[in-house]
Amino acid sequence: MTDLESLFNPRSVAVIGASKSPGKTGTTVLFCMIGGGFRGKIYPINPKEEEILGLETYKSISEVPDKVDVAIICVPAPSTPQVIRECTEAEVKFGVVISAGFGEVDENGRKLQQEIVRIAREGGMRLIGPNCMGIGSAASSLYASMNFTIPATGNASVVSQSGTLATLITLAASERGIGFNKYVSSGNEADLHLEDFLEYYACNPETKVVAAFIEGVREGKKFIRAAKEITKSKPFIVLKGGSTKAGAGAASSHTGALAGSDTVFDALCKQSGITRVSNNREMVNLLQAFSTLPLPKGRKVAIVSAQGGLGVLAADACVKCGLELASLTRETKHNLDAFLPYFWSHKNPVDATGGIADYTILSRALEVLLRQEDVQSVICLAPIFSVIFSTIRPRLSNTVQGAFKSTFIGALGEMEEKVANDFIGLRKRYGKPIVSVGLFAQRGSEGVRLLEEGGIPVHDTPDEAAYVISRLAEYKEYLARLGEAI
Amino acid sequence: MTDLESLFNPRSVAVIGASKSPGKTGTTVLFCMIGGGFRGKIYPINPKEEEILGLETYKSISEVPDKVDVAIICVPAPSTPQVIRECTEAEVKFGVVISAGFGEVDENGRKLQQEIVRIAREGGMRLIGPNCMGIGSAASSLYASMNFTIPATGNASVVSQSGTLATLITLAASERGIGFNKYVSSGNEADLHLEDFLEYYACNPETKVVAAFIEGVREGKKFIRAAKEITKSKPFIVLKGGSTKAGAGAASSHTGALAGSDTVFDALCKQSGITRVSNNREMVNLLQAFSTLPLPKGRKVAIVSAQGGLGVLAADACVKCGLELASLTRETKHNLDAFLPYFWSHKNPVDATGGIADYTILSRALEVLLRQEDVQSVICLAPIFSVIFSTIRPRLSNTVQGAFKSTFIGALGEMEEKVANDFIGLRKRYGKPIVSVGLFAQRGSEGVRLLEEGGIPVHDTPDEAAYVISRLAEYKEYLARLGEAI
Repeated sequence: MTDLESLFNPRSVAVIGASKSPGKTGTTVLFCMIGGGFRGKIYPINPKEEEILGLETYKSISEVPDKVDVAIICVPAPSTPQVIRECTEAEVKFGVVISAGFGEVDENGRKLQQEIVRIAREGGMRLIGPNCMGIGSAASSLYASMNFTIPATGNASVVSQSGTLATLITLAASERGIGFNKYVSSGNEADLHLEDFLEYYACNPETKVVAAFIEGVREGKKFIRAAKEITKSKPFIVLKGGSTKAGAGAASSHTGALAGSDTVFDALCKQSGITRVSNNREMVNLLQAFSTLPLPKGRKVAIVSAQGGLGVLAADACVKCGLELASLTRETKHNLDAFLPYFWSHKNPVDATGGIADYTILSRALEVLLRQEDVQSVICLAPIFSVIFSTIRPRLSNTVQGAFKSTFIGALGEMEEKVANDFIGLRKRYGKPIVSVGLFAQRGSEGVRLLEEGGIPVHDTPDEAAYVISRLAEYKEYLARLGEAI
Repeated sequence: MTDLESLFNPRSVAVIGASKSPGKTGTTVLFCMIGGGFRGKIYPINPKEEEILGLETYKSISEVPDKVDVAIICVPAPSTPQVIRECTEAEVKFGVVISAGFGEVDENGRKLQQEIVRIAREGGMRLIGPNCMGIGSAASSLYASMNFTIPATGNASVVSQSGTLATLITLAASERGIGFNKYVSSGNEADLHLEDFLEYYACNPETKVVAAFIEGVREGKKFIRAAKEITKSKPFIVLKGGSTKAGAGAASSHTGALAGSDTVFDALCKQSGITRVSNNREMVNLLQAFSTLPLPKGRKVAIVSAQGGLGVLAADACVKCGLELASLTRETKHNLDAFLPYFWSHKNPVDATGGIADYTILSRALEVLLRQEDVQSVICLAPIFSVIFSTIRPRLSNTVQGAFKSTFIGALGEMEEKVANDFIGLRKRYGKPIVSVGLFAQRGSEGVRLLEEGGIPVHDTPDEAAYVISRLAEYKEYLARLGEAI
């Protein structure tokens, strides 16, 4: 296994091609490093500047009065061989080559790419990229990215063959409070491959969830070995581009990756316990689910809402993704009878009825369901109605604004907070996954933040809620089979 | 066809069971009507009050000194027969029965439901509901809803067998600037069925797009006839609950609807030109697409991004939903060569490369693609990077906040606005659908609002962008077949 400790926890980093001009990659990368609060030393390298962003600047890496662990290389492609030679002479351990114009372009680019690998290997230096977006590491607050990728800190680690997807996934998950331990954009993978990073993540104790965006696997056997090592103890979520011929063609001119057969890849994922997803939204939903939810004991789900339509759609969604609706026991029904209106549904999905008038009954119904032994997870309506305030309030006539505020907003707001806190308490007490559907909840609203920080994801659709539970159950089943096999 | 003019454009509406107590349905409905700015007269009915929310209140409908077109009935189920009898005596034309506890509950409820229909029919009054959420009509600013459903005004009309879904769909679409002409929650459909509303929408000139949430079709032939009448000239989007056995069971205790065979329903949709969707998110995406985009001439799509990873995923997504990637002509390539970096992809998807540094090239590339005859629609990266500011900025160290603002925010913000306006200009000039993927754009950000108001939807994933285009193309093909058949 390649030792990547000094890549992710370097004492000093040089930015070769650092610049002051807005729009230049060397400017963005340096800015991102300073802004991200890197704990080690930063050495900007630029032959024409004395100082950039308040940092002393050096003409070349050879002038730096210190050992440099990592060089972030932002010079034009034709200058990279010379720069990398100088790096090897200065005993730099890793070069992150952000520059593009290599193997992804044409035959000349491929030759240039081979040349920089040869120079690096001869000098005992390892390369990330070229044509990559950069790297990030929470432990040393190192964010060297041409895309300003400074995500929230946490336990998920990402490797991506597309820089954009690395940025997108980490930032979109950050917005939901999911944090990252490390990310690397592996670009053209001239030297280090995605498999090297996966091996490292498998053993890295700070990494609890692994995610990858893949356009093509270069080392099949190593990939499977690393994947199985990861999934023994950590969820591994994969989004693969190039699953169609058109996509594969696009991938080859993007990072020069060969996409391979999609059916084979799919089978490989199943065998290795990989959670494969279809798009960036599913990736973020699952990063959130694996980072915040316990794994369900099985596929039996209860559904509770105060609105029948949601229950119907959620039941459809559960069945479609292979979940089962738990049958309510006589005891559960009896306990629900005690406080639900007499015309409640009397089966799963539990339609507690009642609209928005009184939804403290939601948390009471939720608790009754969680108490039933074979209810292994619950999908419930999120008790959040932010859209009613933000979308409707501006549409109300002036004459009623005061009364609306006093009659509804205060009461609903208080109830919203109370019910959300009840949900969070139940989530802790029963240790079962609770996933909510925020039919009237807007991302960014206080209620969503409260629930998600409390470990209850809020999804837009019942489909998404059922989907994440089914994928957690699938991983749980993989672990169980693994346990039996040992 | 049932004449529903006085239902949607009444001169006067009574709220029977109007109340002052927060949490009561009669309170919310009255509040919603006043707040929504109803243009006619409102008569609250409550035997115990003299005045509610500043309106003179009557003991019963018989005391109202005026003809009442519509009564919104919010009294408990057992009181409804008496209330409806009084309404017929007062020659009320329509009763919207919000009260629950009828056919959806038990045998007694079913009998009560039959009784109110009998009373209404004998008295020449038509019923909506019972167990419904209410109705809305932009023309008279009538919003009589137990869910505060006051959406943006526009050209889409909705009928929903679930009140929740009616609220959800109209409010979620409103947030994207999509407006509604009418909505009706049809509830248990004891008297008027969803088919009656569909017939009306088919002929209603103010309605340009029709959407329905269906749990069960009660009158198959009438439904098909109405659907075909609608789809002759208007898109008709349908979300159906109860597509699995578990969902169908839930539907029967929700509104007493029989879900029927899902395969049959699917075939029926295809034959009738109905755009069937799978969840509330797809419904809102298509309401937006049909309300704001021209129909594409065919299935040939071009993709343009400044990030390769997006292009790869978008190409996969297009192929998976039956779209074709247009081949770039020699002229198009030549024109792109003029300003793209030499290492651009040279095929569709067009990877303009360059990250966030300079994305005015995006709009230039977009125009070249739109000029190519057989590019019938375009999926492009949304030139919006709000997440960079909102998610990353708070994570930057204090020392660089000032420089970040002066170096990046101003420049990017200006560029964002300029490029978005260029996109909107191109959308108008070329009349082809442009759908964008806002990888770094947050809903609610200024950039998203600008693009969407300019007729360019912003989606979270390439899958969603490809999906909406494929559904527009499908409807276009239906219209073409219809044209040939005539």
